[in-house]
Amino acid sequence: MSGEQQTVTVDLGERSYQILIGEGLLHETGKLAQQAGISSKSACLVVSDSHVAAAGHLKKVTDSLRNSGYRVAEAVIPAGEESKTLAVAEQVFDQAFDAGLDRKSAIFALGGGVVGDLAGFVAATYMRGIAFVQLPTTVLAHDSSVGGKVAVNHPKGKNVIGAFHQPKQVVYDISALRTLPLREIRSGVAEVIKHGIIWDRSFFEWIETSIDPIIELDSRILANMLARSCAVKAAVVSKDEKEDNLRAILNFGHTLGHAIESLARYGTYTHGEAISIGMVFAAELSCELGKTDRASAERIRNLLQRAGLPTEMPANLDPAALLQSMKQDKKATGGKLTFVLMSEIGRVEIINDIDETVVLNLLRRLGRSS
Amino acid sequence: MSGEQQTVTVDLGERSYQILIGEGLLHETGKLAQQAGISSKSACLVVSDSHVAAAGHLKKVTDSLRNSGYRVAEAVIPAGEESKTLAVAEQVFDQAFDAGLDRKSAIFALGGGVVGDLAGFVAATYMRGIAFVQLPTTVLAHDSSVGGKVAVNHPKGKNVIGAFHQPKQVVYDISALRTLPLREIRSGVAEVIKHGIIWDRSFFEWIETSIDPIIELDSRILANMLARSCAVKAAVVSKDEKEDNLRAILNFGHTLGHAIESLARYGTYTHGEAISIGMVFAAELSCELGKTDRASAERIRNLLQRAGLPTEMPANLDPAALLQSMKQDKKATGGKLTFVLMSEIGRVEIINDIDETVVLNLLRRLGRSS
Repeated sequence: MSGEQQTVTVDLGERSYQILIGEGLLHETGKLAQQAGISSKSACLVVSDSHVAAAGHLKKVTDSLRNSGYRVAEAVIPAGEESKTLAVAEQVFDQAFDAGLDRKSAIFALGGGVVGDLAGFVAATYMRGIAFVQLPTTVLAHDSSVGGKVAVNHPKGKNVIGAFHQPKQVVYDISALRTLPLREIRSGVAEVIKHGIIWDRSFFEWIETSIDPIIELDSRILANMLARSCAVKAAVVSKDEKEDNLRAILNFGHTLGHAIESLARYGTYTHGEAISIGMVFAAELSCELGKTDRASAERIRNLLQRAGLPTEMPANLDPAALLQSMKQDKKATGGKLTFVLMSEIGRVEIINDIDETVVLNLLRRLGRSS
Repeated sequence: MSGEQQTVTVDLGERSYQILIGEGLLHETGKLAQQAGISSKSACLVVSDSHVAAAGHLKKVTDSLRNSGYRVAEAVIPAGEESKTLAVAEQVFDQAFDAGLDRKSAIFALGGGVVGDLAGFVAATYMRGIAFVQLPTTVLAHDSSVGGKVAVNHPKGKNVIGAFHQPKQVVYDISALRTLPLREIRSGVAEVIKHGIIWDRSFFEWIETSIDPIIELDSRILANMLARSCAVKAAVVSKDEKEDNLRAILNFGHTLGHAIESLARYGTYTHGEAISIGMVFAAELSCELGKTDRASAERIRNLLQRAGLPTEMPANLDPAALLQSMKQDKKATGGKLTFVLMSEIGRVEIINDIDETVVLNLLRRLGRSS
């Protein structure tokens, strides 16, 4: 194990915060919370899920916080996307209230994206917003832990109910990744690859050479990868905190990815798997519209395949239904289709008002070939 | 009827907006929304309640919006505080989604504080925040329509789940006030009087001379009163948007007022009635602690009585339970009691860490004398 620690600063003026990445950091949660200015006079709440608690991570956090003088309550939600609802949020509000959380309190989100999004939504809206600390335990959560987007799902769409709420701190203990199933590791790498495609060609090339040790969770490589990937996200978010413009490039692969997630049965695809297919589609659409060359699209498909991610269109999903879902996506406005398209690896642009016939035909063609 | 129109600007940098006050403005909603930059390309949603819809105000608004080219959906919630829940919010999210609202859409809140708070909460969190226009139909809503505080209630406390979300515009048609029961008029005047006490002695004195025509809904007097009262709120909020400090003076009378509201059966006291009692208590506590003189406290009690508001402690509420509730209020931090106390009419200060024995004894004494 390497003792090496990486720090990424997310520069958002008075809402700036640090992402600390290293081995064994969960044991330091209390000390780090003090450093981030979280008051120990008010009670705090650690939100986690049943898997993370069973893996022993929750106890590390509550022990560390208590050792630093915090009064700590716990809320453990069932693991899985099904927990990301207003109903579960209401239970967490209840636990926060019962634990006596006040306006100076903090909520710690220990887990993956579901825990982060849900606990973040509660922190954003409990007493109109209290402090929030992210403790990601998955690779994918490196992405959602930067940017301040928090949300729960609506029965008719993902992340429909949400807010922007920046964490005070992100503490990323990479030893927690070692208790993850391989499929989740691979899924998280999808967003990492996306960051290379949209912003940083040399990072993409580094991933091409490092993909094997990444999947094997080499400690040094992993810390580097997470720091570089967080840095891309942080750079984009710093320039556009509320997604008026630039930030939308982060949706590369997500237009179709979200549609797949909302139409496929929960559990068929992870978020990373759905956006892997979505990225292949976005690259193909970029070719189709003459924005990029075939070689770049193939290179993306190859890297995703090497990461063990799916790259074929789901044969059982109806192209027309996927199109309809994309038009209802919350990124769509006025019923127009928006895609992030690639000009080359490391460079993308946002194209509004894409001809839906082109999209539908490509969906059909790729669906048949799969 | 006077054609006179008043405009108050709430100065919040790029989130600044105008409050337009006058007779018959609901018929202009569409034109005014265009002026405020609300896009008619995306669908919009008017949220209202059963009373307001029955009084004919909803039709004025939807007609006006449609005449200006907006696609309009309606969500009518049951009138009353009982609607201010996450469950009702979830229904409105549903209607927003079904109506096809996207990120460029707006939600119009037509009604009193409940509609404003609930619809504002939905607007704050639907797709992480969309545009919001307030159309207040009560006197009390003049207060909640300035300041951007939106929320729903938690079973264990009022406004526990909420956000800060500034409206794009407030359109205040005073003709809507003529369909209100007298009790609601009086309740709204409680917050008006509060604004005089905390910020503007000459306004307080103007209310003393104008209280009879106010209660009789004299058009010119009413427009003046609302404009001046909104101006006080706007001045405070402009200096402290997120209640870090100064904004807390708006809670004059609310520490006890909220406790009364949460312990008394819903419907026993309106919000204005509860804070009327709370203001009398805050003034008495100010005397008790040597902050102000008896004459000022009596003058406040007299004006509230002339406005037809209750000023006696509820005999059936247990002082110890009221104290406990105040300690759990979301304004409390670390279990300490905070009160806004008065030094003179027009001037208040925030006192943290008030001795709870003093509060309890005063609650008991005033409760016995009532």
